[in-house]
Amino acid sequence: MDIAERLLAGDVRGLARAIRLVEDRDPAAEAILRQVRGRAGMAHVVGITGPPGSGKSTICDHLIARWRSAGHRVGVIAVDPSSPFSGGAILGDRVRMQRHTGDDGVYIRSMAARGHLGGLAGAAREAVRLIDASGRDRCLLETVGVGQSELEVMQTADTTVVVATPITGDSVQIIKAGIFEIADVFVVNKADVPGASKVARELRDLVRQTKGMTTWQPPVIQTVGTTGEGVDDLLDAVERHHAAITESGELEQRRRRRLRAEIEAIVVERAAERARRELRDGTMGSELSGDLRGVDPYGLADRILNGHTGRQDP
Amino acid sequence: MDIAERLLAGDVRGLARAIRLVEDRDPAAEAILRQVRGRAGMAHVVGITGPPGSGKSTICDHLIARWRSAGHRVGVIAVDPSSPFSGGAILGDRVRMQRHTGDDGVYIRSMAARGHLGGLAGAAREAVRLIDASGRDRCLLETVGVGQSELEVMQTADTTVVVATPITGDSVQIIKAGIFEIADVFVVNKADVPGASKVARELRDLVRQTKGMTTWQPPVIQTVGTTGEGVDDLLDAVERHHAAITESGELEQRRRRRLRAEIEAIVVERAAERARRELRDGTMGSELSGDLRGVDPYGLADRILNGHTGRQDP
Repeated sequence: MDIAERLLAGDVRGLARAIRLVEDRDPAAEAILRQVRGRAGMAHVVGITGPPGSGKSTICDHLIARWRSAGHRVGVIAVDPSSPFSGGAILGDRVRMQRHTGDDGVYIRSMAARGHLGGLAGAAREAVRLIDASGRDRCLLETVGVGQSELEVMQTADTTVVVATPITGDSVQIIKAGIFEIADVFVVNKADVPGASKVARELRDLVRQTKGMTTWQPPVIQTVGTTGEGVDDLLDAVERHHAAITESGELEQRRRRRLRAEIEAIVVERAAERARRELRDGTMGSELSGDLRGVDPYGLADRILNGHTGRQDP
Repeated sequence: MDIAERLLAGDVRGLARAIRLVEDRDPAAEAILRQVRGRAGMAHVVGITGPPGSGKSTICDHLIARWRSAGHRVGVIAVDPSSPFSGGAILGDRVRMQRHTGDDGVYIRSMAARGHLGGLAGAAREAVRLIDASGRDRCLLETVGVGQSELEVMQTADTTVVVATPITGDSVQIIKAGIFEIADVFVVNKADVPGASKVARELRDLVRQTKGMTTWQPPVIQTVGTTGEGVDDLLDAVERHHAAITESGELEQRRRRRLRAEIEAIVVERAAERARRELRDGTMGSELSGDLRGVDPYGLADRILNGHTGRQDP
């Protein structure tokens, strides 16, 4: 069996190999993605974001355990450099996560936040699609709530959970991080720490003020990661959100938007490849070896984009 | 006088208007950039990055003051959301910065880290070029050391200063943040806090281990932002780096690399524009309004990139 067939048959190593090809921007990845595309679209993709130290990974851990108990198969993409999933953990986090190792029903993959030629968001989106096509019906996407690329990653999620704590950030910081708008569910973790209720109240007020007229009003769930308190409520909110957007047609709309974004990303990636090739090997390269003063980057860019890369007559 | 002429004449408001056009991706920006291009290339562009709370802004403040005393004209682009330059300050930072307001020789501009259609790096690079062309011979670029886009911003700098502190981060975190490789000068700020010497020693060891064979070995400078201690050494290191790369031809090479990167960025931005236009208004849009199962994003992307966007025969 080739990689795509193994992936579709649910083989973990087939899935892992395919994701590696995607990460490496290997030309073979495209064929696999085309082959498995028709089988994707069944997974509920849940994004979870928040500052380092907010306890995202602990919450993910609880969600995974509950999903597994309910018979779901789970995939996790961790692009948070501080996440134990992505190997950046200290202290006991790494140990705690090990309870899933050996469970074939949980596939965990970390992705570096840097160094993706085609963009982190593209690699994450394609990895999610592969997980989806491999028959895993729950997919977690964990990121840190900073930076444009992390925000783009979150656009792959059907349901986005934003985690705050009384320690790592109040509502103002969530707004500043640009993650308020993308939240479908808020979690105030470390609810046993003083100030948690205040943060929760602020978030509820903000939701009322800004999303008063929308059909889905993001609930604010208080959790205690260490004990698992509130995680059932969170799971319930996540499932309710999914049901709500499925019924309202919003899920379908999101997927259409996402497909457009995906096509745009592919166009961009290929244009960048073309530019790099031309600037390295093509005639453009030699045009840039002389005096730079007279070089018009806009004109050269247009010629590359339109394929007119031969040296122009003087 | 039009905007470009005012900018070239050193008029601050002309510069500000031009940068705004660049930030808004206004079509008029391109003409201005073309017009002023030949006058750029004289400024020493110094990037400064590090975690929030490392005291970057205070150090910038000292550098600006010293440059001003030496008769230089200065431009600052702050893309750090926690920087007082970018308006995200709390406490006394904002007040401290005000000492430059009213000084025409210091132009400070904050840039949002998100929401740049053509990419933050592109906007920052063009803003730096405008500052350069306006006759300012020192340009500071301040970012937080996280995220791909911030790293890309730093590629615009001739000299990159990476700030650590005993509190916000040791050498391991600098490596994890991906900013070790881009550093030309290290600063250990808050040198009066216990642990500073240890961080400095670690960094020196790392430099020796990894950059032992390169011509320029990044020095590690200890500073105390609050008193200004060590800032003269920093300034000296920055100037020495500039002299060294000018002499070795590395500066010229960096500028060539940067021009290539710039052309690539323009190609990418235009490709993205083309994709968005097609997916919204063109026939591609209608192809995406039906059942999504059979849609091949790779095929559609190729057609957009190559301008074959008419509906294909069945």
